[in-house]
Amino acid sequence: MNVSSKIDSYEVKVEPFHVDFRGRMFLGILGNHMLNAAGRHSHRRGWGITELNEAHHTWVLSRLSIEMNEMPQQYETVRIDTWVEGVMRLFTHRNFAILRPDGTPYGYARSVWAMIDMETRKPCDLLQLYNGDILNYVVSEEENVCPIEGHSRLRLKEPQLCRSIDTYYSDVDINGHINSIKYIEHILDLFPRQRFEQQSIRRFEIAYKTEAYLGDRLDFYIQQEDEDTVDVEVRKSDGEVACQARVQFR
Amino acid sequence: MNVSSKIDSYEVKVEPFHVDFRGRMFLGILGNHMLNAAGRHSHRRGWGITELNEAHHTWVLSRLSIEMNEMPQQYETVRIDTWVEGVMRLFTHRNFAILRPDGTPYGYARSVWAMIDMETRKPCDLLQLYNGDILNYVVSEEENVCPIEGHSRLRLKEPQLCRSIDTYYSDVDINGHINSIKYIEHILDLFPRQRFEQQSIRRFEIAYKTEAYLGDRLDFYIQQEDEDTVDVEVRKSDGEVACQARVQFR
Repeated sequence: MNVSSKIDSYEVKVEPFHVDFRGRMFLGILGNHMLNAAGRHSHRRGWGITELNEAHHTWVLSRLSIEMNEMPQQYETVRIDTWVEGVMRLFTHRNFAILRPDGTPYGYARSVWAMIDMETRKPCDLLQLYNGDILNYVVSEEENVCPIEGHSRLRLKEPQLCRSIDTYYSDVDINGHINSIKYIEHILDLFPRQRFEQQSIRRFEIAYKTEAYLGDRLDFYIQQEDEDTVDVEVRKSDGEVACQARVQFR
Repeated sequence: MNVSSKIDSYEVKVEPFHVDFRGRMFLGILGNHMLNAAGRHSHRRGWGITELNEAHHTWVLSRLSIEMNEMPQQYETVRIDTWVEGVMRLFTHRNFAILRPDGTPYGYARSVWAMIDMETRKPCDLLQLYNGDILNYVVSEEENVCPIEGHSRLRLKEPQLCRSIDTYYSDVDINGHINSIKYIEHILDLFPRQRFEQQSIRRFEIAYKTEAYLGDRLDFYIQQEDEDTVDVEVRKSDGEVACQARVQFR
């Protein structure tokens, strides 16, 4: 198979209710579009959620790092390319290019996914499953470059409690878990209006640790790394970490 | 012009992150799709936001009533038909049919819109604007039926404070106003998980009164009408009513 047959492109239009007060697409909306692109790319190759669920397996998003030169504006058309860069025993690396119709980049993203058995909740060995079929879809870094840094190791030493929120009906997905996109929204909501007036998000990283459920109270701890960088840790009321994030402004 | 040329159809697919824990599309997401359909229908006829903004006019959603037999499920395809049912001096009535690909209805919706002058914030006379051109797009109730009741008159006598929330970055639209869809989300979030486990929404109505802004604290007052019906009033901290809604379960 040639490289182009392993990369899928999806076009989306930036809708009016999907932009912030500056007319720029919300990062959570972009994340949602990327996860949809990932789902469709997998589905077309027989590795989609529908196919996997029959075998009692499912994909779990573990990490997502997005780096943007510029956020798309209302009514613009955005092309999302996605491909698998690598497969390890327990994880796949999936990349994204977020492009203008002329092919110039708005930005790029990297993600890490595990596949779990839905009954045991334990990870599966991706290299053994379906005789390692997934390796057929790998596009190496040489074949299609994703020119952004890998995921950071976030270590929050003395984070300060910034906000606590209760979670409700709109926060959870079909599995009853707080959905990956809602975490992004709640994290960005920690920043005041002025921040978004003066700066834009250069890079956003998130690492999902354990599931939280409808009704869980979430505590948002923050730690300022430097003038433009804030680390966030989201904890459940028992102290367990639901996710960690790094938000870098420019 | 014949009737079919005045009705537009838009197809959407129900995305994974757009369904609730029962696998049914969130009502707010459906609302968003309807507002997009309305925007595109207007745009095609020279009455879109882009065109109007040049004349310093804009559409403002005043009322929305949605009645559903069933909510679409994950991965289903939904067709949204939209048309203008009537034009009065200060308001237009726009209807929606929410259909399966085979044309059978999931449900229907009615909406009321005003056009305002962006500088004075005063309503425009729709019958005079562009020599009453908008009348060319009216589809009467006889030509295409919208078989649901009109908007109710909501009168909350002694509502009780149910929840207060602060509003953040993700709550506001390009105008800096709390966005119409977010109100729907926040209102449905007032109900506990069990309600959605045992019942589904038969009808949802909302009447937008005054704009609220990023940072405004919103108080949600509720009044139980009957076992299945709850009225909600959202007030700003100065007591002014931002919107009123009626949620009817089945």
